[in-house]
Amino acid sequence: MTREQLVESIRAKKSFLCVGLDTDPTQIPEHLRGKPDAVFTFNKAIIDATLDCCVAYKINTAFYEAMGVEGWEAMQKTVEYIPYTHFTIADAKRGDIGNTSSQYARAFFEGMNFDAITVAPYMGEDSIRPFLEYKDKWTIVLGLTSNKGAADFEMQPMATGMHLYEQVISTVSHWGTPGNLMFVAGATQASELATIRAIIPDHFLLVPGVGFQGGSLSEVCEHGLNKDTGLLVNASRAIIYAGEKENFAEEARIIAQQYQFEMATYIK
Amino acid sequence: MTREQLVESIRAKKSFLCVGLDTDPTQIPEHLRGKPDAVFTFNKAIIDATLDCCVAYKINTAFYEAMGVEGWEAMQKTVEYIPYTHFTIADAKRGDIGNTSSQYARAFFEGMNFDAITVAPYMGEDSIRPFLEYKDKWTIVLGLTSNKGAADFEMQPMATGMHLYEQVISTVSHWGTPGNLMFVAGATQASELATIRAIIPDHFLLVPGVGFQGGSLSEVCEHGLNKDTGLLVNASRAIIYAGEKENFAEEARIIAQQYQFEMATYIK
Repeated sequence: MTREQLVESIRAKKSFLCVGLDTDPTQIPEHLRGKPDAVFTFNKAIIDATLDCCVAYKINTAFYEAMGVEGWEAMQKTVEYIPYTHFTIADAKRGDIGNTSSQYARAFFEGMNFDAITVAPYMGEDSIRPFLEYKDKWTIVLGLTSNKGAADFEMQPMATGMHLYEQVISTVSHWGTPGNLMFVAGATQASELATIRAIIPDHFLLVPGVGFQGGSLSEVCEHGLNKDTGLLVNASRAIIYAGEKENFAEEARIIAQQYQFEMATYIK
Repeated sequence: MTREQLVESIRAKKSFLCVGLDTDPTQIPEHLRGKPDAVFTFNKAIIDATLDCCVAYKINTAFYEAMGVEGWEAMQKTVEYIPYTHFTIADAKRGDIGNTSSQYARAFFEGMNFDAITVAPYMGEDSIRPFLEYKDKWTIVLGLTSNKGAADFEMQPMATGMHLYEQVISTVSHWGTPGNLMFVAGATQASELATIRAIIPDHFLLVPGVGFQGGSLSEVCEHGLNKDTGLLVNASRAIIYAGEKENFAEEARIIAQQYQFEMATYIK
């Protein structure tokens, strides 16, 4: 999906919601648990119910890997089921030396045809370059994450005077363009979004942590919106586990719609 | 595997060699390519041929993920095939917020029963803690890697005066013990091994980059050995692709033995 298509989709839906499919087979409604293909059945219902409220789906690979081969199959089926109108993100946080990153890029961009993958920056340019080489695909690099541990390294000051996350965003922004590179920017530190926007006014930011991690959508928008919206705000558990009964998909839709309604008020 | 068992295995074999199973289905000998179960067949032959020269096997998950479901099956079969006498490493470079890292830990420590997994430090303590909580398992955190991109962030100076990799190793070393925590320390910068040893005299270091990436084993040993050896030196392509014909496993064994013979001269 191109940047133009993504921006168009956001404007048409008045939503920059990304639904996170962090599907844990022990957390899905009881009537599905243990059934064959339970995770895909659950995901399918969530996707059907939320399709017109969101512009993207993010699949957290960890939850699928924890199920072994069966999980890998459920991930493939899920990404294949998501229509091409929606932006698909493999939240995989990969990154390795060049020839290994090339294999990860193949796995997610060719094998499963995701639009985007999240990538960890620690190992530097040659660990990220193989992802950027794919035409019409997106690399989403960790900038500032929404967890407590962000304080341990990301928020530490560098000799340059910048925090590590600022230096990462500043450096990595030159390796791609606003048309193939995004950054993860955690919403629990919304004030830092202003700092990030000063470094990269044009790039899209993938903002996790709105929902159960306590971020505030209005603050995120205040500091994070740009002329093309420039935000994908992810909610996972708040949406997919909204209901515990057979009507879980309808409950999920209600929450997704609440995000969409609030987002519509912020889109210029 | 406990530290005592690993040290005992190194002393008995006079080897601290780790064989890296970065098996690319397009790189294996022609007579195997395209055959059903080709990757596992290849790995099995390499394992059989090198078992008494090495103490560990490292499976690079990217190469298996690039093959999709079939690759995930080949990885499972390979790790199951490696006998309990050998230390098994999932070179996965994972790391995410706590509840997600827990899923990765389940995938590799429970689902596939690896002894160890490599983990990226960028997201801080709560991204690493779930791996450390497993008894008798090992977390191997990226310190200094062997690729060119290490210069981009890992080698950058912090406000503390340390390089980022030093600060990472220093901070992370307090989260675990030399009995459940190791660090990746790239061998292309052997002089930095002395710096790392000054910070963590007791921890094991996983040293990639000896072989095709141009590291020198004698330099690694000069700066990296400690009283329990404290090193696992990995070689992947140099060993597994030593031969291109039907005798590829024998060729691999010859190279693995050369590493073992040289290592024996350095073990105290």
